[in-house]
Amino acid sequence: MVLLRDVTLRDGLQDEAPVTTEAKLGLFDALVAAGIRDLELTSFVRPDRVPAMADAEEMVTATAGRADVVTRWGLVLNERGAQRALAAGLRHLQWVISVSEAHQRENAGQSVADGLAGLRRVVELARAEDADVELTLATAFGCPFDGPVDPGAVAEVAAAAVDAGVSALGLADTIGTAVPTEIAPLVHRVAALGVPVGIHLHDTRGLAITNALHAIDAGVVRVDGSVGGLGGCPFAPGASGNLALEDLAHALDAMGVDTGVDVAGLIEAASVACGLAGRTVSSHVGVAGPRFQGTPFADAS
Amino acid sequence: MVLLRDVTLRDGLQDEAPVTTEAKLGLFDALVAAGIRDLELTSFVRPDRVPAMADAEEMVTATAGRADVVTRWGLVLNERGAQRALAAGLRHLQWVISVSEAHQRENAGQSVADGLAGLRRVVELARAEDADVELTLATAFGCPFDGPVDPGAVAEVAAAAVDAGVSALGLADTIGTAVPTEIAPLVHRVAALGVPVGIHLHDTRGLAITNALHAIDAGVVRVDGSVGGLGGCPFAPGASGNLALEDLAHALDAMGVDTGVDVAGLIEAASVACGLAGRTVSSHVGVAGPRFQGTPFADAS
Repeated sequence: MVLLRDVTLRDGLQDEAPVTTEAKLGLFDALVAAGIRDLELTSFVRPDRVPAMADAEEMVTATAGRADVVTRWGLVLNERGAQRALAAGLRHLQWVISVSEAHQRENAGQSVADGLAGLRRVVELARAEDADVELTLATAFGCPFDGPVDPGAVAEVAAAAVDAGVSALGLADTIGTAVPTEIAPLVHRVAALGVPVGIHLHDTRGLAITNALHAIDAGVVRVDGSVGGLGGCPFAPGASGNLALEDLAHALDAMGVDTGVDVAGLIEAASVACGLAGRTVSSHVGVAGPRFQGTPFADAS
Repeated sequence: MVLLRDVTLRDGLQDEAPVTTEAKLGLFDALVAAGIRDLELTSFVRPDRVPAMADAEEMVTATAGRADVVTRWGLVLNERGAQRALAAGLRHLQWVISVSEAHQRENAGQSVADGLAGLRRVVELARAEDADVELTLATAFGCPFDGPVDPGAVAEVAAAAVDAGVSALGLADTIGTAVPTEIAPLVHRVAALGVPVGIHLHDTRGLAITNALHAIDAGVVRVDGSVGGLGGCPFAPGASGNLALEDLAHALDAMGVDTGVDVAGLIEAASVACGLAGRTVSSHVGVAGPRFQGTPFADAS
């Protein structure tokens, strides 16, 4: 069993023109109907900076009835965000630190040490409300400024986060530089810290699926992706940034690996999501369909 | 060492509007400059059926001076084609049989048994000229009409081909249905026949690269692909059919696997090829560039 976490509602839509809360809830429903049980719901950031996430509180409230079915994650960048998320009723928070100092400075405007200090304060806030905090280790495989990232540096930040009390860790290949041989060593090293490890991959150089399969072999409990491959700073139309969840779900399904997700339902959700973003579905399975379908022997599904 | 066979000049261009022989020779030179040492040069088919391959003889003659550097393959569909190829001076012929009877009937207008009989006659013709014949086993993993293909049927056709005297076998995932777990068992089974085995993959469902890496692990000596992912019956723009050779070369290079190919040179060749086909380069590495380049630490290559 591998848990597929959908990141479309947050990572997929955050840089798109804002859509209505109602439209997002339609996508939420389509994802849940497809069997998604873990997802990034929103982020608690300044509405003037990220208008697409201005309805964070409404999204939490409107989906509260599904909290027993779906694990809903909210990204926070500071204590104010954490307070908002907790006050809205969210119990699963995400914090991000770029392991590379150069990217952490550019992305978060602070040092790795400051990021860890902020994480400790957010974990304290969360604990008081019985909530979890996951740390995403960004640029875990490579940095746009510093190039290759030392796995030792990743392990160090991860250890400090575990010490701070995170419930889970995520390894993010932020700029899509990871190759399969780099996956297992880092997953094993971080998993040795004793908390569940997930992975977040970008398909920038066509290796998201193969890296995901290697990560699953190496023992990650969760793989992130967006339907239609939305989000994740695409370099160009067609070169989608995030791993397309339906492509991974299709491969796992064909290999007999249980994900609890219905591939046809996920393709349907991709269609909804791409409609919201005003984009054409460009995932492989979204375009070609699952294997052995549309042929005389295909079953009804 | 893994041999990357470029199929752009034949598989990549055969369904495009014909381009001049001179333009094709420019692409040939770009491929050789990138380190390609094995390629599909052309096919000897009826010019009225495949106008893009009407200059088969000229292509062989014009590249004869590089025959010691590059293994040049020519596809033949019958004895007439084989005679033409041999008379032109080509010494590496390709024959194709779809393992699935339904696809063999649709594609070649004959049965598998007829395909094997034709193969035997072509091997005889080739032997008299000291030439090799490779058999491509099409629909080795799945058929658009019959669905999943029995690996036992693949092994049977492969054994008959070895008996007929082929110098090599190629497993073709013609409609892009193969998943990684299906690769090694079939490669091992066919390799047990004692001739070198190659693989030809389509990226229809996003698994060409991961399947290629599994095939290399399983011992294939050669992987086919086209620069820019050209050819191979794309379902839609952007959903290129053939494995994009520069994406695979980049992954192997980053993993330290020697291919003898220069990734930057292959991207350059992709640009030439897509220019000929009037298409935009849509391979991942063609769009995003190799990892860790264009950044302050990137080396000059």
